Amino acid sequence: MSAEPLIVISLPEAVVSPAPRSAADLTEQRGTRRVSFTPKYGSDAVQVDVHYLWCGAPHAPTIIVQGGISADRDVCIGRERGAGWWQELVGRGAAIDLDHCRVLSIDWLVPADLGEAESVSSEDQAAALAALVDELGIGRVHAFVGSSYGAMTGLAFAANHPEKLKSLILLAGAHRPHPLSTAQRSIQRSIVRLGVESGRTDEALALARQLAMTTYRGSEEFSRRFAAGPELRDGRFHFPVEDYLEHAGRRFVERFEAERFLALSESIDLHDVSPERVSAPTTLVGFPSDRLVPLADLCELQRRLAGTATLEVVESPYGHDAFLKETVQLAPVLRHALNDCRGDH
Amino acid sequence: MSAEPLIVISLPEAVVSPAPRSAADLTEQRGTRRVSFTPKYGSDAVQVDVHYLWCGAPHAPTIIVQGGISADRDVCIGRERGAGWWQELVGRGAAIDLDHCRVLSIDWLVPADLGEAESVSSEDQAAALAALVDELGIGRVHAFVGSSYGAMTGLAFAANHPEKLKSLILLAGAHRPHPLSTAQRSIQRSIVRLGVESGRTDEALALARQLAMTTYRGSEEFSRRFAAGPELRDGRFHFPVEDYLEHAGRRFVERFEAERFLALSESIDLHDVSPERVSAPTTLVGFPSDRLVPLADLCELQRRLAGTATLEVVESPYGHDAFLKETVQLAPVLRHALNDCRGDH
Repeated sequence: MSAEPLIVISLPEAVVSPAPRSAADLTEQRGTRRVSFTPKYGSDAVQVDVHYLWCGAPHAPTIIVQGGISADRDVCIGRERGAGWWQELVGRGAAIDLDHCRVLSIDWLVPADLGEAESVSSEDQAAALAALVDELGIGRVHAFVGSSYGAMTGLAFAANHPEKLKSLILLAGAHRPHPLSTAQRSIQRSIVRLGVESGRTDEALALARQLAMTTYRGSEEFSRRFAAGPELRDGRFHFPVEDYLEHAGRRFVERFEAERFLALSESIDLHDVSPERVSAPTTLVGFPSDRLVPLADLCELQRRLAGTATLEVVESPYGHDAFLKETVQLAPVLRHALNDCRGDH
Repeated sequence: MSAEPLIVISLPEAVVSPAPRSAADLTEQRGTRRVSFTPKYGSDAVQVDVHYLWCGAPHAPTIIVQGGISADRDVCIGRERGAGWWQELVGRGAAIDLDHCRVLSIDWLVPADLGEAESVSSEDQAAALAALVDELGIGRVHAFVGSSYGAMTGLAFAANHPEKLKSLILLAGAHRPHPLSTAQRSIQRSIVRLGVESGRTDEALALARQLAMTTYRGSEEFSRRFAAGPELRDGRFHFPVEDYLEHAGRRFVERFEAERFLALSESIDLHDVSPERVSAPTTLVGFPSDRLVPLADLCELQRRLAGTATLEVVESPYGHDAFLKETVQLAPVLRHALNDCRGDH
């Protein structure tokens, strides 16, 4: 599967931005490259524009970092210098230390990027990353650090492009989705499709996000935060947790398209990579309160991986979102897993 | 709160049906009585028609049995002699033995039954049952066996009508809903409201039921049953668990109204009874795989009840639905909790 030709075309918009004052000696490349591969659910090779961020110490080893389906390439620094989605863990002196590494991340592909394909797979995301690694002249990445859907993509990358990878660090993601999680996501997609068909897309997308939120956070956290009673408002009772969910739903609609959500949500459920195909040394990080990716699935993954595999269990009340929230606990775990990164160049 | 006057009016449709051949010496009363009480969310007393089933050994002590919001009074025998929803546990020689007890159950009230009230509470259901107990001349019931919403109603009954009750048996229900479960139900209600507003009520109600199904069953059961991969059909991938959920959703729509669902779902979330107000001896039955009513909530309930309280923990893969599915394991638990029922009359 890794034998497909990877054709890479440089586009002029690939630029080296001037580094910010606080990162005077770091490089930051925010660009787009056109690559070619055959999508899993397509019959022909397609040309795909991949939007990436590549930043860190010049000439340092590259670490791919990918997050969940709603994350983008802005891992450590946002557009207009805003916050990156994982900047507590990726930065100068952080666990993923930009003084000693370069981080590469892409915006997720959707079927519209893939020509006539109606679905996009984690293997397609991995193929795009592999082509980009070639195009940027990286050769082999020091590590792939993936969380949630990013972990699925990391596993696909390791299975299909083993020569491009030294090690794998996977947080809250496994070789297949749990069927209960698939159930919850398939309902989210049905809500969105119903909304699209009935001209209520935004409300439906917000509801789907609300449902997703109930699967991301730990049960105990809900219990602690939303113990208060309901409030009678506008003729009906509103529960505190409802206000929280509605706010989260509205915020999501402002930044996410229904079609993108449908495609990436489905892509999680289509993910299926045999652990036996992965021989890279792997560190798995799981959270007992994660109901979306049960620890039992990471135990099975650890048992079945072909290479050495360590499972780190991190206690957290935050459920699946622990990969975003438990930065203090995760820092030493990541440092340890990456410990041969420093001085490796 | 138990001091409100309970006015009961006999309606002519209360009938004693001829007993079936296999239960020659059992009575079976399927009737309607008009009772009066002041609803929790109303300001005045209202007249309410309560539909009930009362069957078992004549003159034997009465046991109230109530199930979840989608259950009805047909506990042990359905209309036209069909199956009752708990007939493995309620019947001649069963754990709740109709040769030695009489079982009383009502159809849940909805706000439309309560005049101008816009919501119905578990305490209203309890008030209706208490009035019915008076009207039928029962005096004091031997036990209230409630599951899920029925457990909530049982707790409200014990708190507000202590003189009408000897003991309480509560399965998979507690003194308050878990906030995560409230979150899941509030989303179900939002889906239904969106469907009603956009003229897609049936599809929305089916989706709400699908979501409810993901909260009823255990995670491991989903894992075991739906491990197969997706199938490409009608232009998109369908997952095995999706077919199961869609079937369950369609079946629910055939037998349930959107308004009824909205009201009873909300009623669960409005439930809030202080355990300290309940002094009846109580047996709690909880299931570790129940994510809707976590065992921790039953532990808290046990600790806070004013009377003696036993917690029976029953292992099951079926989650919240274990109260319906684990009839073999539940039979001895119920027999033990009811053991002074035999020969008590």
